[in-house]
Amino acid sequence: MNKKGKIPNATITRLSIYYRQLELLEFDGYRMVSSDKLAWLCQVNSAQVRKDLGYFGEFGIRGVGYDVIELQAEIKKILAINREWNLGVVGIGKLGSALLEHENLSVRGFKCVAAFDNAPGKIGKVLSSGLTVRPIANLDRSIRDLDIEIGVITTPASAAQSVANLLLDAHVNAILNFSPTRITVPDCCLVENMDFTVTLDILTYKLHQSS
Amino acid sequence: MNKKGKIPNATITRLSIYYRQLELLEFDGYRMVSSDKLAWLCQVNSAQVRKDLGYFGEFGIRGVGYDVIELQAEIKKILAINREWNLGVVGIGKLGSALLEHENLSVRGFKCVAAFDNAPGKIGKVLSSGLTVRPIANLDRSIRDLDIEIGVITTPASAAQSVANLLLDAHVNAILNFSPTRITVPDCCLVENMDFTVTLDILTYKLHQSS
Repeated sequence: MNKKGKIPNATITRLSIYYRQLELLEFDGYRMVSSDKLAWLCQVNSAQVRKDLGYFGEFGIRGVGYDVIELQAEIKKILAINREWNLGVVGIGKLGSALLEHENLSVRGFKCVAAFDNAPGKIGKVLSSGLTVRPIANLDRSIRDLDIEIGVITTPASAAQSVANLLLDAHVNAILNFSPTRITVPDCCLVENMDFTVTLDILTYKLHQSS
Repeated sequence: MNKKGKIPNATITRLSIYYRQLELLEFDGYRMVSSDKLAWLCQVNSAQVRKDLGYFGEFGIRGVGYDVIELQAEIKKILAINREWNLGVVGIGKLGSALLEHENLSVRGFKCVAAFDNAPGKIGKVLSSGLTVRPIANLDRSIRDLDIEIGVITTPASAAQSVANLLLDAHVNAILNFSPTRITVPDCCLVENMDFTVTLDILTYKLHQSS
């Protein structure tokens, strides 16, 4: 575990992607995989795979490759996904509801344990995920009671900052922000933004360049 | 417009974020903004702002800053978001439905003009967005008729690659992939992945590091 302070987000993102491909390789019956093959599957080059993994130790056998099951376990440990994480989703519109039931979250160990909204018509409603919508006013207590470590913001842009402030007050120090705005938080808090229109802008930029 | 070939995704992402903050500044009545202030609002440093914009020309006035309205227009031109783009969404589950109605898409000039699925129970259904679910079997013709340039995949992982292949056959060369898997496409096709569990892995990694 060396050079940890210098590891870029892009490396962490790729580790997460390597992990998903290793799962598929295991499913397909592979025991070993070369860095070339893993790289090809993940659409990067093999030097990148070796460099990314090299931040965290020596995992492969030169000339043979990586043990598919062992490398999964190592990456799970690095990413801290060898345990479950409790999520609270704030803003139960269509997107919030879709996330609460998204198969991929539970499969990956992310448990949505609470749904929050402040619309009187939504509070108390039982969702098809089985959760009952809780009032945002009780955020602090629910977060403590349910041991929520990651907050997911799916409110409109106008509500995002105040929700972030409430999450911070409740000592939630990691936020996945789906609202179409940036939120301001102190350094102790981690935010990752998922504004998909920003990603669409990357596509339009490149489409325009290639046309 | 120099050095275009070398511009990293991260710069394009930041331009998109600068643009959103410039909109807010205009809304708040600002005519000019310094690179320091714009940087602070976007949570980057001001050298980064100047470097990102510097790829595309000379926009600011030294010691004064950027014209809030002019810089918006320039970034819109750079990102090719000074026009509308037609999107087709494939996979009308909860997430697909949520995206079709997401306020943020239409506000940003991304028009969802078609919804596709292959479930007999869904085909022909009129969605609350007003669109009627079309059969994936007709993807090619619909894409041509509706001038769809960007495909959005919101299917389960198992269907993503075959949908991507159909989009490619229909000459859609830009894909926003929400399915929790990587898809393989030829170089002529652009793919951006939106697997939010990958982003959650970044949060868990950092939470673990800071604990």
